[in-house]
Order: sequence, then C-alpha cells, then structure tokens
Amino acid sequence: MAAYKTIEWLDAGKAVRLLDQSLLPRQVAYATCSDVAGVAEAIRNMTVRGAPAIGVTAAYGLVVAAYRESSDEIADIHRAVQEAIEVLKASRPTAVNLFWALDEMVAGVNRISVDSGEEYRNALLSCAHQMAKDDININRALGQAAMELMPAEKVTFIHHCNTGSLATVDFGTALGVIRTAHEAGLKVHVFVDETRPRLQGARLTCWELENQGISHQLIVDGASSQVMKTFAVDMCVVGVDRVAANGDVANKIGTCNLAIVARAHGVPFYACAPLSSVDLATRSGTGITIEERDPAEVKIINGGWVAPRDVEVYNPAFDITPAEFITAIVTENGVAYPPFAENLRRLKEQ
Amino acid sequence: MAAYKTIEWLDAGKAVRLLDQSLLPRQVAYATCSDVAGVAEAIRNMTVRGAPAIGVTAAYGLVVAAYRESSDEIADIHRAVQEAIEVLKASRPTAVNLFWALDEMVAGVNRISVDSGEEYRNALLSCAHQMAKDDININRALGQAAMELMPAEKVTFIHHCNTGSLATVDFGTALGVIRTAHEAGLKVHVFVDETRPRLQGARLTCWELENQGISHQLIVDGASSQVMKTFAVDMCVVGVDRVAANGDVANKIGTCNLAIVARAHGVPFYACAPLSSVDLATRSGTGITIEERDPAEVKIINGGWVAPRDVEVYNPAFDITPAEFITAIVTENGVAYPPFAENLRRLKEQ
Repeated sequence: MAAYKTIEWLDAGKAVRLLDQSLLPRQVAYATCSDVAGVAEAIRNMTVRGAPAIGVTAAYGLVVAAYRESSDEIADIHRAVQEAIEVLKASRPTAVNLFWALDEMVAGVNRISVDSGEEYRNALLSCAHQMAKDDININRALGQAAMELMPAEKVTFIHHCNTGSLATVDFGTALGVIRTAHEAGLKVHVFVDETRPRLQGARLTCWELENQGISHQLIVDGASSQVMKTFAVDMCVVGVDRVAANGDVANKIGTCNLAIVARAHGVPFYACAPLSSVDLATRSGTGITIEERDPAEVKIINGGWVAPRDVEVYNPAFDITPAEFITAIVTENGVAYPPFAENLRRLKEQ
Repeated sequence: MAAYKTIEWLDAGKAVRLLDQSLLPRQVAYATCSDVAGVAEAIRNMTVRGAPAIGVTAAYGLVVAAYRESSDEIADIHRAVQEAIEVLKASRPTAVNLFWALDEMVAGVNRISVDSGEEYRNALLSCAHQMAKDDININRALGQAAMELMPAEKVTFIHHCNTGSLATVDFGTALGVIRTAHEAGLKVHVFVDETRPRLQGARLTCWELENQGISHQLIVDGASSQVMKTFAVDMCVVGVDRVAANGDVANKIGTCNLAIVARAHGVPFYACAPLSSVDLATRSGTGITIEERDPAEVKIINGGWVAPRDVEVYNPAFDITPAEFITAIVTENGVAYPPFAENLRRLKEQ
C-alpha cells in the first residue's frame, strides 16, 4: 500500500479527505470535503483526478450528502442523494467511472433493505467502502493479467499521464502493471511522458515511481519517437477514462499521438482498463464527450505566463484513440485483443 | 519587416546585438555580444536560436573576433578568426547552418583580395551583412515557392516550434510560408504547438502571429491528433535544423511525432528548408548528432520545479523525421518531392 491515501473517509467528520494532487510533488497536503459542492469542486478542479479515483470520490460524495441532510427520514435522505447525483454528474464529462460509480451506489443501496435513515446512511457508506476495496483488488488483478504480455527478464515502458495510486484508491492501473512487473522481479525502466498541460506525468508519476524505487526518466510528450528510435521500448501503457464498446479509448490528451507513434515504430500499445471503465453503452469514440478545460492550464505554468496573455487556446483534456491503434486492452478479467467488441463484452460479462 | 531585430550589427561597438529570446514574450530585451565567447554563449544558452539565425549570428561572431584582435596584421586577424571558428563550432551540434555559415564566411573572404587588416575586417563584415540580407530574400522566395501547395481560399496549419522572424534574420521559414499565405489574402488559421520543453511555440510563435494579426490557437504538443480529428487541418509546416541528402530531417523534438500523426490522419507534412540547411554531405538522419540539453529545461518551468528534484531526464533537443513521413521539402528554389535524394540535389545545384 502507498504511504499516502488518495481518498479517505473521515468517520468523525462524515467527510471525505483527498490528497491534494494539484500541489504534488512539492507539497503533501489534504483537502477535506464535508459537503457535496466541495466534493464536486474537488473533482472539477482536479484536487482528485484519475478515472477510478474520481468514481470512488463521487461514491463517498453521496455518503457525505446523506450525512449532511438534517432530516433522518429515509425519503429526505434519498432526495438529498438524488440531488447530489446530479451535482456530481455535472463535475466532469469524460470519464465513465464517475457515472458508473453513482449508478453502482444506487444499485447497491437498492439491494439492501433499510428501515431508518441511519440504516440508509450506513448502507451507502458500506457500499462506498466496498467500492474502494474492490478498486484495489481489481487493480492488482489487472496487474497480474498483464504479466502475460511481459518479456522474460527486463521491460522498458513508455507511460502517459498518471495511472498509479493517485489515480485510483491504491495500486493503480497502468502504473499497477509496471509495479506488478517490478514486484515480479523484472528489471523495469519507465520513460515518463510529462503529460502537458497539467504535467501529471512529471508531478505525480515520477513521484510515485521514486517512492517505489522503480527506475525512470522524465521526457517531454513530443520525445516518444526519439525514445522509441533510440532505446528498446517494449510497450506503451496507459490508463483510460472510458473504453467504448468497439475498443476506442478516451484518455488524457496525448494518448492518441503516443498510440500512433507506437504503431509506426512497431511498439505494442496497451490500454489498462478496469471493466468499470468499459462502457458498452457507448458504441464508439464518437459518442464520448471530450471535456475542454480552462486556457490558463496551457498559458500559465507555476504562476507565470508562458504565452502572450490574450492568446487563444484549444485545450481538450482528452482525446480518442481509435481501436485500430490499440494492441490490447488489459482488464482485471484478462487481456482483450481485437476484435474488441466481442472480447470486451465477454470479459465484461464474466 | 518585423518591428524588432533578431540580429543586428552595432558598428559603433563592433558587436552583435541579439534580441534575447529567452525572455520573450514577457520582456523585449537585447543582449550585446562584443567578444567571441559571448557570441558562442548566446548560441549555447539560446539567447538566439533557430538554425538560420544561429548561422548569421556565428557569421557576425567572426567579425567580432576580427575587431577584437588588437593587431592589425592580416595573419594575426586570420588566426583570431580561425580560433573563433573552433569556438563557435562547439556551441551547438545539430543545426548545419552554423557550420555552413562559418564555411561561407571563409569562402567569401577568400574571394576578396585584401591588403590590410582593415580590408580584411571590412571584407568579413560585408560577407556577414550579405548573408543576413540573403537570408531574408531566401525566406521570401521560400514562402512564394510554397504557394503552389495552398488551397484556394482558406488554409489551416499546424506549426511546431518557432520558425519566424525570430528564428531567422527576418520573415522566417515555415512561419514565412504562413505569412506569405496571409499576405496573399488567404484566410489563415494556425494551431501552434507549444513545443516543450522550451516552449518556443507558446512564447515566440504566438507572439509573432499576434504581431502579424494572423489567427491562431495555442495547443499542447500532445493535442495534434485531436486537432486533426476535430478540425479540417490542411497541412503541417515545420522548419529544419538539418536535412540529410536522403530527405531525413533533424528538427526540434516533437517534429517526428507530428509527422507520424499527420501521416495517420492523411494531412500533408511540409518541411521548410533554406538550401543552406540541406546537407548533402550527410547521407541520412543517422549521421546527424542529436544534442541533449540540461534536464532543468524539463524539470523547471518559470523558476519552479514541476517534477521531483532528483528525477532523471532524457532531454534530446531534436529528433529525426524519416523522409518517408515528409510529403515535400520547400526550399527557396522550389518544392522538392520524393525521391528526395535526386530532387534535393537538383534544387541545391540550381
């Protein structure tokens, strides 16, 4: 387990405590969200980020809403939870885990018969706790599933964005794959895409890899061709914000560039996706909304302007990598190869 | 002509004055180099950058050396110039214009018969002035040559790094192409790669385009797939630091990624190269030394760390784009299409 906790339920305060990822690696600080607006804002402003972490945070957001409701009537708490769902759904549009987690929470509570407001709150809390625990187990299983893709002795990765303990409850998805290989005794080296504009690779992934003692080098996002040409890169691994039924993947901006470059160099490209990120209801990538974020993310770094102040910016937070550029999708139930439509459905239904 | 001068000879001080590009766009300031060490350091620390601008700066560096020599004997001045050539050649390894410009200066002076130290100095100065003047004319001719590639009414570009007035004596290469299209009345829009690590796109290209009233939007380098998928991009245009005889192109890190992505999206990719950047003596890209620069360029932005302090960095300043990903190479003598070996030689020999 990581020495820090990305997401933690504070039972005393009936609040969710988040490691503030916008301050890392310079400062390890926590933000406590004791109402739904605070949880939604923490998702929106990326105090917490990473599709699985967002999902679990939103789940705890419903628990916060239930406790913040002053009435102990089941109906009143239920109404507060319904309102919270709408607020949280509006926080970020692309990662499906947010919507999945909220649906799971509703389904989970519906499976439990509650006779009082207190029981309702307890049921919500135990559902959120279960989801957090499941996330870690799923990530570990995903890491194990990826071992069939590993060379025998040493493996060199390119990794985009952050997909580690910080992007999940713990252990991580693509970084969990890297960690699993490391723990299995392979000689691991990681080239870390810095991942502009928010530099999750530079700030978060390097910090995690350093904490875990895994060999790595930071690169700018534009350097991946040069890295593949110069070094023996075995594979690219990325997380996902949503996988469509046909295998198209929405993920952090820059993912599609990396996938296309990997194809040109003959380097396998693996998307690491807990099945909660696989959205069979979305037929293809064209059905996924791409969030556009504040121009300031690109124009201002460390409080200083890096471009003329009035410059117009196009700042999509994500891109869609067409399934044709993805070698395989790694899930906790195994590795899906093309044809993805059929194989993802099979894994999802296991 | 641009309102600012990238490179200017100060006859009073026998020095070369450079617009300090490391401070733009926040501050317009100049650095005056009155000895060879200062000129070499300005090239090395990127006070001046851009292959053509580096070449002309180095040329003036020889003039500076000639004036700094206290003896008026031709032989002594000649020795000082020879020493300066070695110092300047060691400043940056990748762009061929540096070496080309120094060779041209020597050849130029050899063509002039000089009978005194004063005549030698004057000859050097007039060679450097001629090279500066030629650079502008070459860039304008290159821009005109590219007009055969333009659509009829409107044209949308993706542009990498900075290739404008700041990268040359004036007018620019790839940005000169954009400017020529704009001046010809086409409706121009430019997506500007910010170009990590040194952000020449964000800092310099946006500033130049704003000064010229050309519509543009800043993007992170990883966004080019998303841009090509979302908007009707007509072409990518980049400058070059060196073109090998077979058409392989060394240019700013991130160029090869962009070229590969453009190919995948069916978007033409044009390298804009004055013939002084075409190095027939280098057979292919594998013969080009790729400069690796200080890790701090990646780790520190605006004076603040964006990664753990001790992180290892791989920071190649350039990459090689294989000729197969280049649609055509635009020169002042016309557009070279594949097979490049044959067509570049023909244009070079015109």
